[in-house]
Amino acid sequence: MLMTELIAKKRDGGTLSPQEIKFIVDGYTNGEIPDYQMSAMLMAMYFRGLNHDETVELTLAMMHSGEVIDLSAIDGVKADKHSTGGVGDKTSLVLCPLVACEGVKIAKMSGHGLGHTGGTLDKLESFPGLSVNLTPEQFLRNVNEVGLAIVSQTANVDPADKKLYALRDVTGTVAVQGLIVSSIMSKKLAAGADVIVLDVKCGSGSFTKTEDSARSLAEEMVAIGRAAGKKAAAVITDMDEPLGYAVGNALEVKEAIACLSGEKCGELLELCLTLGGCILVAAGKAPDMDAARGILLEGITSGRAKRKLAELIAAQGGDERAVYDTSLLPSAPVQLEALSDKSGYVNHIQADSVGLVNLHLGGGRATKESVIDLSVGLVLHKKVGDKVERGESLATIHASTPEKAAEAAEMLRQCYTITDEKPQSKPFIKSVIV
Amino acid sequence: MLMTELIAKKRDGGTLSPQEIKFIVDGYTNGEIPDYQMSAMLMAMYFRGLNHDETVELTLAMMHSGEVIDLSAIDGVKADKHSTGGVGDKTSLVLCPLVACEGVKIAKMSGHGLGHTGGTLDKLESFPGLSVNLTPEQFLRNVNEVGLAIVSQTANVDPADKKLYALRDVTGTVAVQGLIVSSIMSKKLAAGADVIVLDVKCGSGSFTKTEDSARSLAEEMVAIGRAAGKKAAAVITDMDEPLGYAVGNALEVKEAIACLSGEKCGELLELCLTLGGCILVAAGKAPDMDAARGILLEGITSGRAKRKLAELIAAQGGDERAVYDTSLLPSAPVQLEALSDKSGYVNHIQADSVGLVNLHLGGGRATKESVIDLSVGLVLHKKVGDKVERGESLATIHASTPEKAAEAAEMLRQCYTITDEKPQSKPFIKSVIV
Repeated sequence: MLMTELIAKKRDGGTLSPQEIKFIVDGYTNGEIPDYQMSAMLMAMYFRGLNHDETVELTLAMMHSGEVIDLSAIDGVKADKHSTGGVGDKTSLVLCPLVACEGVKIAKMSGHGLGHTGGTLDKLESFPGLSVNLTPEQFLRNVNEVGLAIVSQTANVDPADKKLYALRDVTGTVAVQGLIVSSIMSKKLAAGADVIVLDVKCGSGSFTKTEDSARSLAEEMVAIGRAAGKKAAAVITDMDEPLGYAVGNALEVKEAIACLSGEKCGELLELCLTLGGCILVAAGKAPDMDAARGILLEGITSGRAKRKLAELIAAQGGDERAVYDTSLLPSAPVQLEALSDKSGYVNHIQADSVGLVNLHLGGGRATKESVIDLSVGLVLHKKVGDKVERGESLATIHASTPEKAAEAAEMLRQCYTITDEKPQSKPFIKSVIV
Repeated sequence: MLMTELIAKKRDGGTLSPQEIKFIVDGYTNGEIPDYQMSAMLMAMYFRGLNHDETVELTLAMMHSGEVIDLSAIDGVKADKHSTGGVGDKTSLVLCPLVACEGVKIAKMSGHGLGHTGGTLDKLESFPGLSVNLTPEQFLRNVNEVGLAIVSQTANVDPADKKLYALRDVTGTVAVQGLIVSSIMSKKLAAGADVIVLDVKCGSGSFTKTEDSARSLAEEMVAIGRAAGKKAAAVITDMDEPLGYAVGNALEVKEAIACLSGEKCGELLELCLTLGGCILVAAGKAPDMDAARGILLEGITSGRAKRKLAELIAAQGGDERAVYDTSLLPSAPVQLEALSDKSGYVNHIQADSVGLVNLHLGGGRATKESVIDLSVGLVLHKKVGDKVERGESLATIHASTPEKAAEAAEMLRQCYTITDEKPQSKPFIKSVIV
């Protein structure tokens, strides 16, 4: 088999066979196929697309390019969750304890943030002492004993995806549905869970700008998960503004704790109840979504879910007292209100730009090597549909210096679109694909 | 300027600006832009194409990526010719002396053969002692004194094309008109001639299979040549069978000498009279094509053109006696007739496959490093339209061993399509673009 011929086949609109896809993935992973041929193939895929069968085969070949985690030593149903990435997305911090305290095991590998999006690991590291680098044995033991663990992906899981993603990023070939699907699902399948729920973002703050493209992506991922023998579901949610109120690592942890304490009941709670409902139903812990919702809400009101978070933190070496006393979390020395310069209704908040405000404050990574400040960020006070008066605060900026705070406040104002008319309200959860 | 953004621009159907094209060519040539980004760009160009302005800018940027030969030290009009490549194409060996003996200077850089196509330099090297590696000073002196020189391209001419062509070859991005045009024309423009004539092949033996694609390519090349201030013309010729009769280095030299001796007057002579006519008219040596034809034919009947070939050979250290006594050229020890296994009319001769017969005999290069046997090859006796009887010879194979000869004869038979019906005759010269 010659890569040149396979490039020409895809370029001319042909369908790659399972053997050809495996040849490509294995050859690229082990270095026999050079980057320059792979990038030509990726661009041909950009124009020609990948059909369902090709996407299934690509996902499986990538999944098997490295280690496939064996979770059979863990009792019970193992669940995993993936989000296509967003700003202010602290969902995992709420969702994982929420379902773990109902007996569903969470063996989660996650990542650090990059660019305008944050990462669950950075948020967890806000807890003093906490480590996300467990040995495989510790990881399995924690999941068995505590019910959940959230760790950094080990080096040998899905090496094909690491190489491919890095190449796509610099060759204009990120936005190909089959490549997005296989990138996400190959990692999730290699991570070994029985139940996979997917939070597919849609809107200006995500790479799927339209609801149609988000639905197509979600349906394909659910189909691939099932083709691989997993239970899978997806929720399509709005990312036309940041999720919830806080953006920034420790600030998001505080919002997550508030949610688990029953103090905030907005879209963050709604999302966690929906994703959690999908998991409980798939795991056989609830007969339907309504029943699941009741169970999950009881986990919050009883304090069980919050205690589960504290157990997670303690089991990974973190200071669990911070769950009950958030003043133990990192906090920034400077607070500044970002005041609105006009009156009206919030029509739109450009989510990725809000992510860049946090990046500017030092709370995000410009490159993989960046050292970040976990304490900084911002807390929104006005969300889409809210009435705002000139001079009223849009958000509180948490910064390391007054200069940074002032710059961030100005940037944050630019993220808001304020109009005279109140915008039509849109559902936050657009659909659930089960 | 970021290459990633330029890839996305072309991918999305945008037009690259002159500055952007220069950035790409310079960055790729000097290694700042890696192969993997360039190949993604090339594939995006495959799908989106290059418009006329982009092709002009690409050609000029490539032309200026290395040394641009200064021929101003040579008196008179300097002409150059390019062929898009074919099998049995010994045109340069006839054409160059033919126009040089009329006072048009030929300062030609040529190449060795690769794969199924031969190269002018290999053919010239059939003359014992001849060197194609002249110093720049020798080269200019020979052109001034003899009127022509044919040498190997120096390393520093159009380095962008060398890198780009090698990359296109292995990434499925050869067949893009703008890239073909810029590859050919950037080299020709860097070679410094005032008049450029192009022989654009069309048919199964060339990469432009249809007359439409050949015409589009030819028109674009002529337009680019003029945009760069040159006189340019193109001839579209049939390559649905090999050109002339001989395929193989010394064998083609013999056919060229026969043509210059007035012994053969087929399509080879016709092509040289047409290309030569374009040159004489552009150089002001003839008022029109008819007059040019008369002048050129007189160069043959008078023996002047043949003497000019002998002068070229001598000036580059070769044994000029071989022009008058072709037994001094390399000859193969074994001759074998390839007999037809059926009767009928020759409908088609697959030209590239005939090139592969010569490659199999050792007369062509499988890789750039291959050492070739200049003596081997074949001489066709039957061309498209000819009547053939079962058992009659299709061609004489010239080989190093009887085994090779027998294999080649069988391969050669497979190149022929023989039908009961006489095929409709097609013009060899399809059009002249001046």
